[in-house]
Amino acid sequence: MSQENNKTKTAIASLMNDIGGRAKAAARILATANPETKTAALLAAANAIDADIDTIIKANIIDMQKAKERGLSASFLDRLQLDQARIKSITAGMRKIAALTDPVGAIIAEWQVPSGLDIRRVRTPLGVIGIIFESRPNVTADAAALSLKSGNAAILRGGSDSFHSSKALGACFATGLEQAGLPQDAIQIVPTTDRAAVGEMLKGLNGAIDVIVPRGGKNLVARVQADARVPVFSHLEGICHIYIDKKADLEMAVAVVLNAKMRRTSVCGAAETLLIDKDIAATHLAPVLEALSAAGCEIRGDKKVTDMFENSVPASEKDWSTEYGEPIISVRVVDNIDQAIEHIATFSSHHTEAIITDDIKARDQFFAEVDSAILMHNASTQFADGGEFGMGAEIGIATGKMHARGPVGVEQLTSFKYLVTGNGQIRP
Amino acid sequence: MSQENNKTKTAIASLMNDIGGRAKAAARILATANPETKTAALLAAANAIDADIDTIIKANIIDMQKAKERGLSASFLDRLQLDQARIKSITAGMRKIAALTDPVGAIIAEWQVPSGLDIRRVRTPLGVIGIIFESRPNVTADAAALSLKSGNAAILRGGSDSFHSSKALGACFATGLEQAGLPQDAIQIVPTTDRAAVGEMLKGLNGAIDVIVPRGGKNLVARVQADARVPVFSHLEGICHIYIDKKADLEMAVAVVLNAKMRRTSVCGAAETLLIDKDIAATHLAPVLEALSAAGCEIRGDKKVTDMFENSVPASEKDWSTEYGEPIISVRVVDNIDQAIEHIATFSSHHTEAIITDDIKARDQFFAEVDSAILMHNASTQFADGGEFGMGAEIGIATGKMHARGPVGVEQLTSFKYLVTGNGQIRP
Repeated sequence: MSQENNKTKTAIASLMNDIGGRAKAAARILATANPETKTAALLAAANAIDADIDTIIKANIIDMQKAKERGLSASFLDRLQLDQARIKSITAGMRKIAALTDPVGAIIAEWQVPSGLDIRRVRTPLGVIGIIFESRPNVTADAAALSLKSGNAAILRGGSDSFHSSKALGACFATGLEQAGLPQDAIQIVPTTDRAAVGEMLKGLNGAIDVIVPRGGKNLVARVQADARVPVFSHLEGICHIYIDKKADLEMAVAVVLNAKMRRTSVCGAAETLLIDKDIAATHLAPVLEALSAAGCEIRGDKKVTDMFENSVPASEKDWSTEYGEPIISVRVVDNIDQAIEHIATFSSHHTEAIITDDIKARDQFFAEVDSAILMHNASTQFADGGEFGMGAEIGIATGKMHARGPVGVEQLTSFKYLVTGNGQIRP
Repeated sequence: MSQENNKTKTAIASLMNDIGGRAKAAARILATANPETKTAALLAAANAIDADIDTIIKANIIDMQKAKERGLSASFLDRLQLDQARIKSITAGMRKIAALTDPVGAIIAEWQVPSGLDIRRVRTPLGVIGIIFESRPNVTADAAALSLKSGNAAILRGGSDSFHSSKALGACFATGLEQAGLPQDAIQIVPTTDRAAVGEMLKGLNGAIDVIVPRGGKNLVARVQADARVPVFSHLEGICHIYIDKKADLEMAVAVVLNAKMRRTSVCGAAETLLIDKDIAATHLAPVLEALSAAGCEIRGDKKVTDMFENSVPASEKDWSTEYGEPIISVRVVDNIDQAIEHIATFSSHHTEAIITDDIKARDQFFAEVDSAILMHNASTQFADGGEFGMGAEIGIATGKMHARGPVGVEQLTSFKYLVTGNGQIRP
C-alpha cells in the first residue's frame, strides 16, 4: 500500500515537473509576444467559450451532480454552478481584461547618470504563475486571463469538484492561444485531482513557478503560506477596522459604517471591528449601531458599548481578532486616535482600515501610523478592490509587504529589468 | 552531550526571538520617525565612530590576532582589517547615505477613480531587515546605515571572525540612535558567534524579520537561499556575458570587453563569458583577445576560438557556467544574435549582460529578449552597481524577479501602502 502510494507520488511529481518545464518554455515566448497577439489570444478564447457554451454547461452539470451526491452545501453548489448568464459574465470579464493597457515593456522610470549612461527600468513578466483555487470555475478564466495579459504563463489547479468545468474552460484558452499563434502550454489546467499535485506546485516545480496565488478560504491560504517554497501573493484574512474619530460627521459615519459592514459581509474588505472615540460616543454610537441592528447585524461590544446600547452582547477577547464574514460586528469605545491606532496595530490583519473624520490632522496621523495595505479616509472599506482602484481587474489582494501589496492587477503580476544605454563607457 | 546541545539551542532561539521582538517594536517607531531624526541619528553614529576610532581599532586587533592564529588567508585578513583610512571611508559612506533623499512617504503614484476617491501609493519601510554577512566589518556600518535611512530596523549577524569589530561599530550606532531619540533596538548586532543564531534568523524570528540580505560568497548565499523561510534579496552568482554583435565598433569592443573582464575580476558584475558574432570574428576576435591576454587574462575558447587565436586553451562544457572571479574568460563564436541570446538564456545567472553594437535593431532585440536584471548597450558590465546607477549606495544586487531586482538601494528597501481619500463614498 505504502509502495503503491510512493509510486503514485512519483508519477504525480513527474507529471507536475513536466507541466512546469513546459510552462517555463511557454513563458519565454509569451514574454516577448507583442500586445496585439496577447489581446487576440484572449478575445479568441472568449469567443471559443461563447461558442462552446453548451459543452461547458454539460461539463459543469457533471461537476454539479457529483457535488450534490457528495452532499455539499447550497452555497458551495452556488459557487460551482455555471449557467448562460454566468458564462456571459466570464467572457465579458475576459474582454475587459483584453482591453487593459499591456503592462509589459512600459517604462517605470528613466534617468541619466554622470557617466553619461541612460538607465531605464521597464516592466517584464514574472514568468510562471501558479494559481491554486477552490471549486469556482470562474476563477479559472479570470486568473488565466490576467496571467496571459501580463505576459505570464499560468498553471491552474482548481478544487477537484470543479475539475470538469475548469477543463472545459481551459480547452477554450488552448483554442484562443493556438489561433493567436501562441503556445498552448501558456495556460495549463492541472489534469489530475490528486492532492499531491498541490504539494508539488508549492515546492515550485524545479524552479519553474515564480509566484503562487491562492484563491479561496483561510484553510487553503494558510496551507499555501506555510508550505510554499516560492513567493506567494495572498491575504490570510481581512480583519478590517473602521474608526469614527471625534471630528466625524454623524450622517457620513452612519452611511459609511453600514456600507463597510453590511454591503457584502463575506468579502475580505468588509469591516469586522468598529472603533469609536469616547468624545463623540454619546452622539454617534447609538445612531450607527441602530442602523447596523436594523440591517440585521449583531453587535458585540466592550463594557461601554453594552452600557450605552441595549441591543448588544459583550465581546470576548477573541472577537477582536475574528473575521466574521457574517453580519456580526465588534465595537469598542477608544480614548482617542492613539488608542485606535494601537488597537489596529494589535489586531489588524493589515488589509484595509478606514477613518471617518473632518480633521485633516487626524487623517494624516492615521495615514502615517497605521501600517496596512490600504487606508481609507471618509470612504467604505469595501472599496478595497482592484476594479474600484481602476486596475481593471485583480487576481487577489495581498497583505505581504514585498512586491505586491493591496489589489494585485496586471501591473503587480510583472517584474522589471534595467536597460542601460551607453556609447562605449568603461568604468574607472 | 546531545541534551547539552539542545539546551544551548533553546537558549539561542530564545535570545534571537527576543532580539526579533525588540527589532519589530523599534521598527514601528522608526517607520514614523521624520527624515531629520533619521539623518541626525546617522550623522551622530558617524561622529561616534570617528571619536571612538581607537576603541574600534583595538577591537579589530583582537579579531585580527585570532584570525592570524587560526591561519586564515592573507585576502581574508585584508578584508577583516580596519585602520584609520578605512574607518574614515566607512564614516564618509555613512554621511553619504545620510544625505540621500529619504524614500519613506514619497508618493509613487496618484490617481482618481470615477467614484471620486483619490488614491495615492506611498512608500513605507519594509520593517525589519536581517543581514547575514562574512567577516567584513565595513558591511556592519554600510548595511546598518542603509536600513536606518530607509526607516527599517536591522539585525546584523557578521562572520564570527569580525565579532569584536562589529560590536564596536554597533555600539556607535547605539550612541547615534540614542542621541537622536530613536530606540537603540533599531540596530542590533547579534551578541553571539553561535551558528545556530543564523538558523534562527532564517526561520524569521517568529515573523519579526521581513527580508534577509546575505552579503558574502556563494556558499553563504546558497545556504540562505535554501533555508530561509522569509524573502531574500540576493544573487547567487554573477555569470555575466558580453556579446560583440556583427555591427560592433572594433575600438569600443576592445576597450569595453577589457574593462568588463579585467577592471576588477572579483566583483559580481565582471564578465565571465565573451560571445562574438562569426561575421566579425575575423576582424574583431584577435584584437579583443590580444588585449585581454596582454592584461594577463587566460582565454578558454570553443574550437573556432582556439583555431583562430593561438594563446588560448579549449573550454570545457563546465566553463560556460563558471563564475571565475579571476582573470580567466570563456569565449564562444556564435552564428548570430539569436544564438547569443540562446546561450545567455541557458548559462546566465540573470545578473548583467552587455551587447556591443552600432545596430539599434540588434540592441532592441537583445534588450527585449534577454531576461536579466541589468542589460547594457555599449557599456561595461562593471557598471552594475547602485552607486553607478545613481542610487547613492546599495545593500547588494538581487537577481530574483520579486520586489527588488538589480541594485538594492534605499528605495528597494521600502514597501508601499495605498492612501485613499473620499468624502463619504459608499460602495454600490
